[in-house]
Amino acid sequence: MNAHARTDIVDAVATFCREVIAPKAAEIDETGRFAGLHRTALAEMGFFGLNLPEALGGVGIDPFTLFECVALLAGACGSTASMVTAHYLATDSIQYGASDEQKARWLPSAASGERLGAFALTEPDAGSNPADMKTVARREEGGYRIRGTKHFISNAAVADFLIVYAKTDPDAGGRGISAFYVEREHANLQFGEPERTMGLRGGHVFEVVIDTVVPEENRIGAEGSGFRTALKVLDAGRLDIAACCVGVAEAAQGLALEWARTRQVGGAPIGQFQGLQWMLADMAVDIAAARGLAQAASTKRAAGERYSLEASMAKLFASEMAHRVTDKAIQIHGGYGFTRDFPLERFARDVRIMRIYEGSSEIQRNIIARTILG
Amino acid sequence: MNAHARTDIVDAVATFCREVIAPKAAEIDETGRFAGLHRTALAEMGFFGLNLPEALGGVGIDPFTLFECVALLAGACGSTASMVTAHYLATDSIQYGASDEQKARWLPSAASGERLGAFALTEPDAGSNPADMKTVARREEGGYRIRGTKHFISNAAVADFLIVYAKTDPDAGGRGISAFYVEREHANLQFGEPERTMGLRGGHVFEVVIDTVVPEENRIGAEGSGFRTALKVLDAGRLDIAACCVGVAEAAQGLALEWARTRQVGGAPIGQFQGLQWMLADMAVDIAAARGLAQAASTKRAAGERYSLEASMAKLFASEMAHRVTDKAIQIHGGYGFTRDFPLERFARDVRIMRIYEGSSEIQRNIIARTILG
Amino acid sequence: MNAHARTDIVDAVATFCREVIAPKAAEIDETGRFAGLHRTALAEMGFFGLNLPEALGGVGIDPFTLFECVALLAGACGSTASMVTAHYLATDSIQYGASDEQKARWLPSAASGERLGAFALTEPDAGSNPADMKTVARREEGGYRIRGTKHFISNAAVADFLIVYAKTDPDAGGRGISAFYVEREHANLQFGEPERTMGLRGGHVFEVVIDTVVPEENRIGAEGSGFRTALKVLDAGRLDIAACCVGVAEAAQGLALEWARTRQVGGAPIGQFQGLQWMLADMAVDIAAARGLAQAASTKRAAGERYSLEASMAKLFASEMAHRVTDKAIQIHGGYGFTRDFPLERFARDVRIMRIYEGSSEIQRNIIARTILG
Amino acid sequence: MNAHARTDIVDAVATFCREVIAPKAAEIDETGRFAGLHRTALAEMGFFGLNLPEALGGVGIDPFTLFECVALLAGACGSTASMVTAHYLATDSIQYGASDEQKARWLPSAASGERLGAFALTEPDAGSNPADMKTVARREEGGYRIRGTKHFISNAAVADFLIVYAKTDPDAGGRGISAFYVEREHANLQFGEPERTMGLRGGHVFEVVIDTVVPEENRIGAEGSGFRTALKVLDAGRLDIAACCVGVAEAAQGLALEWARTRQVGGAPIGQFQGLQWMLADMAVDIAAARGLAQAASTKRAAGERYSLEASMAKLFASEMAHRVTDKAIQIHGGYGFTRDFPLERFARDVRIMRIYEGSSEIQRNIIARTILG
Repeated sequence: MNAHARTDIVDAVATFCREVIAPKAAEIDETGRFAGLHRTALAEMGFFGLNLPEALGGVGIDPFTLFECVALLAGACGSTASMVTAHYLATDSIQYGASDEQKARWLPSAASGERLGAFALTEPDAGSNPADMKTVARREEGGYRIRGTKHFISNAAVADFLIVYAKTDPDAGGRGISAFYVEREHANLQFGEPERTMGLRGGHVFEVVIDTVVPEENRIGAEGSGFRTALKVLDAGRLDIAACCVGVAEAAQGLALEWARTRQVGGAPIGQFQGLQWMLADMAVDIAAARGLAQAASTKRAAGERYSLEASMAKLFASEMAHRVTDKAIQIHGGYGFTRDFPLERFARDVRIMRIYEGSSEIQRNIIARTILG
Repeated sequence: MNAHARTDIVDAVATFCREVIAPKAAEIDETGRFAGLHRTALAEMGFFGLNLPEALGGVGIDPFTLFECVALLAGACGSTASMVTAHYLATDSIQYGASDEQKARWLPSAASGERLGAFALTEPDAGSNPADMKTVARREEGGYRIRGTKHFISNAAVADFLIVYAKTDPDAGGRGISAFYVEREHANLQFGEPERTMGLRGGHVFEVVIDTVVPEENRIGAEGSGFRTALKVLDAGRLDIAACCVGVAEAAQGLALEWARTRQVGGAPIGQFQGLQWMLADMAVDIAAARGLAQAASTKRAAGERYSLEASMAKLFASEMAHRVTDKAIQIHGGYGFTRDFPLERFARDVRIMRIYEGSSEIQRNIIARTILG
Repeated sequence: MNAHARTDIVDAVATFCREVIAPKAAEIDETGRFAGLHRTALAEMGFFGLNLPEALGGVGIDPFTLFECVALLAGACGSTASMVTAHYLATDSIQYGASDEQKARWLPSAASGERLGAFALTEPDAGSNPADMKTVARREEGGYRIRGTKHFISNAAVADFLIVYAKTDPDAGGRGISAFYVEREHANLQFGEPERTMGLRGGHVFEVVIDTVVPEENRIGAEGSGFRTALKVLDAGRLDIAACCVGVAEAAQGLALEWARTRQVGGAPIGQFQGLQWMLADMAVDIAAARGLAQAASTKRAAGERYSLEASMAKLFASEMAHRVTDKAIQIHGGYGFTRDFPLERFARDVRIMRIYEGSSEIQRNIIARTILG
Repeated sequence: MNAHARTDIVDAVATFCREVIAPKAAEIDETGRFAGLHRTALAEMGFFGLNLPEALGGVGIDPFTLFECVALLAGACGSTASMVTAHYLATDSIQYGASDEQKARWLPSAASGERLGAFALTEPDAGSNPADMKTVARREEGGYRIRGTKHFISNAAVADFLIVYAKTDPDAGGRGISAFYVEREHANLQFGEPERTMGLRGGHVFEVVIDTVVPEENRIGAEGSGFRTALKVLDAGRLDIAACCVGVAEAAQGLALEWARTRQVGGAPIGQFQGLQWMLADMAVDIAAARGLAQAASTKRAAGERYSLEASMAKLFASEMAHRVTDKAIQIHGGYGFTRDFPLERFARDVRIMRIYEGSSEIQRNIIARTILG
């Protein structure tokens, strides 16, 4: 893909997000209606396959372009971006862990948006240590019986397939974990009501109680390869979150700049106040720094190198940044920023989870420290 | 009032807030129903007269006790505290600005909760400069015709009386402002729908379009005394906000400590992690520092001295503190903190406005700098 | 002591610090000369006995007045305050741990400044856990043989007496620690050169190698009481550090305000820039918050209650505050703040240690968390 | 230059800095001796021409390599880096503003290190507004008579040539400023003593009183082009400062990591404490973010585009970052970090000026806000 094509894609996505996605964002938030309302339109834009190569039915773009597209989507509607990036976690699990045959079997229908995915890794009582996982997949006739409970699973009850991580060897720590492709319509799964959340109210997350049998051919890759796959998936997922954070922050920044230029107090635009200018400057630097960290991660990703450290850094910084930037944008708007007449308070609620999920800021710090201490 | 009586009052208020107010807080937030649902119970507790001396129908407590009571109320339900403290702004306007005859006429029914007040100072296009006020009160037969638009007025459409600040001498800056007691049932006022806000969803705020005539006897104090009155009212109001912030922060802290003690990850309570301990320690220091600043303001207030600088400092620090503390409490709860199953996300939304209203953090910094630069 | 007397003392100390101490501060810093140059003058002011009651030869002031005096001294010369507060740690060890007879024997000459004290608790490899202490005091004929190495001991090589903490029962943890009054002229002590430090260059700290015998009568209080004594001493010491931090911060603030009022750029005093005003406002609030925390600790201290938590909070916040405030004062001065023509860079260097010694900010957070988690 | 050559250069510079420069850094700081002691060695390494193309006698490296070299030098000795980067400001003034003939005349002897440069722009009473400049260059027979006072000029009294900015048209604002090549040995210049500074004690800065005549051929480029030239020079200079900040921060980080791995408290390396790990993680992210911003600026620079906004952002963030990172490294070292036995306290003092000179953090925020507000 040349630079020209890349710009064309980003421009098209920008227009789509502005014209199709953004106008529904407030309604999705207010009603808590699932962001799946956009599923057809997103599928037509190719959004469900942005993270996949053309050979597997995807769009085949580079990580830099993917980053921009995810950012634009999140800036328009965080809930929609949540649904889409959860789908990426599912398809990346296949992309990074499955056999060629499995990829050919499962990815095209996912990439086209025909079948929506969910990524079922997290459990209620588990921290970041794989040894804590309690979901177990025991071999039995016809394949594996999977039993366990997953928590905070985006898309789960509305997905067509779930990638479920479970222990095939409960005593082997990370090496005992395998991933499975579970078709919702053929599985025995019980879903709670969508969690009532602070933000991303249209990006439904569920508890899932699993007690089902899947055929052996639905085990993704070799037995025991699941944890290694999950780590690669999380690298991509953390960069996706960084993109969401940058996207929301830039949307908030855009509103803040516009407000600073046009809102008059005492006869002058408030953008003339130095204190407010410094807030805007700090926002700009903060966003640019997050972009720089994401750029470093994407560069390694594009080169086919591992980028776990870079992804952790980008995710940590970008999510903290989005919190600061949306908060400053509200503050700049004064009382108006507190109202739901502006999307700023929604932005602040939506990004709040980004410092928590797929490894909280604290977990990222643990990871980074472990890496640099060697 | 001796220390014993003071402790008794605080204990009684604590029980009331825990048993009567707190259980309804989530519902008030979710439905956006006006916090006035508690009006009778609050009245019985004497809450509507906590800021007033016994001679005027109030409870007659010292500023330290008032602070604790407001903090407890806000920790139970921010929306309810918002309704009550807005009422204090109205009755303080009378207490600090009115003649003895007026006080006797208006305060007892307000202190008993029979008549709910609103404080109508802020205007859509005005900053903190009194010269920006556009609402005008012109003398005409029968008193004053008041015309103008007020904005973000808590309680307005559901109040029994509004204290309206207006210019009786449009060319005299702060010295041209007077305050008026406007009875809602006899006035020509138009109210917008309650603002759709991020938090304090049960503490309704309104736009008010005023075009009405009030008798001269409803002018509070002398003509031109309104701005001086408003400044005194805002001193008290800022200390009330500091109390709300401390109350919410302490409620959040209580939940975070409980969670740290009981939530297990990997077989140990998360309170054993040093990083998390430091977050809890920083929260505790932050709250204590806010209390120290409020204590300094209350000490001066109790001595009958002006405490504008101290009130600004307490309001600025406490509101920023409450933002940090509720945010850390969410973070400590991880994904659970993001759900509405815990009140933490509501706390974070409720306190967001406290850095904005009655003088944003930026305005407080302006005030403080002006004071210390001399 | 009535409020009047208290004000008189503070006024006298303020004058003394301004006229006698401050003028030598730059020279003491530049030459690294020991702050003992002021010993006679300080003794005449009663400074060496400010922390002691009159019955023991001290001045007999309340904790609030003590706080102000220490703050003023540190604001004039941090090195001098370091020497004096180290002396307080030594005499507080006697005050809080010794028998009446011992107090009468040792405190008057210390309070008068005739004999300078040092407080020898810290060891090179020890953290904050008393179990780590390696200095041992073994009973032998003639008393105890004390052997061990102490580190970062203020005043040590120039003190007349050292309070040495050592294990009389090495297996008993905190309960096996005792304190000893060691007279430098009669003891076998080896001192390193004064540590070459970033700041407090005239407040010399030393390594001390101890191998000496002290008579039993020099054991302070009962055997095994040393750790309990040390904790009480550290409460007082932490409040003294908070005072030093407030003092230095207020001195820096004073210079920053003066500079903001008088320094012209582009024809206007820089104090007219809003961004700079906000820096000044934040400095003022920061200082006031530290004062509030110290006030809470002093209030408990004055009432004779334990104030360990309050002292930790005050020390932690005040030392971090002094770092922020001196840093902002430098920034406000631009390039001038970086020169040694102003005392600001010295202030910044002097306060740097205050976040580290007598329990670093990290140790204080550990203490606070442990206390509130219960 | 290919990637291979680039790595070779950086490796050679790293070795040189570690073996030749770093061992003298403490001595240069303690004695305040001018960093020119390294002049010959630096010249042999080509350091004085790193910023210049080969055709003009320079080394001809790309901006990314230049950044690494400057970072390494500053990490070894900030004073030396200060001397060298001040020289770059001087030669960049020629490179960006002079005619080809002038470049050929002046740059080779500067690039070889034979002639050391100084950059004389800043004045005692001027802010960042060019209208404030008071130094005037009036045409008279034989060229221009330059009169004025410059302030905080690195290298000035020890330079062979100074680039002096002066107003050739005092009423024309920025368009009235021209730059001049002033040979110290032939000019009438009076220098103050080196400023006594907090850090960079071997990177001498001076006040310069100018009253001299220079021939017209020494005017750099066209009359009135000086301000435009200065802006370009400052872009490069700000990126150089960002490099210095990254270099010092990485040196501090290296020490902190080593300490965390080896320093034992209570029998375990302190790197096992989670709180300390999070400090190390935050340091790493902070440094990486600064690198990302610098990378963005260097990318535009390498492409020949203007990078003023990116340079401001990189300078602002990197200098604030270096303050945070060196401060945390000291804190991690506890009492040891406060001693001059470790270079950390020097690092903290050296980087303090980087938030101030060549446009303080506040000025950068003004610039950034103006740019983004449009």
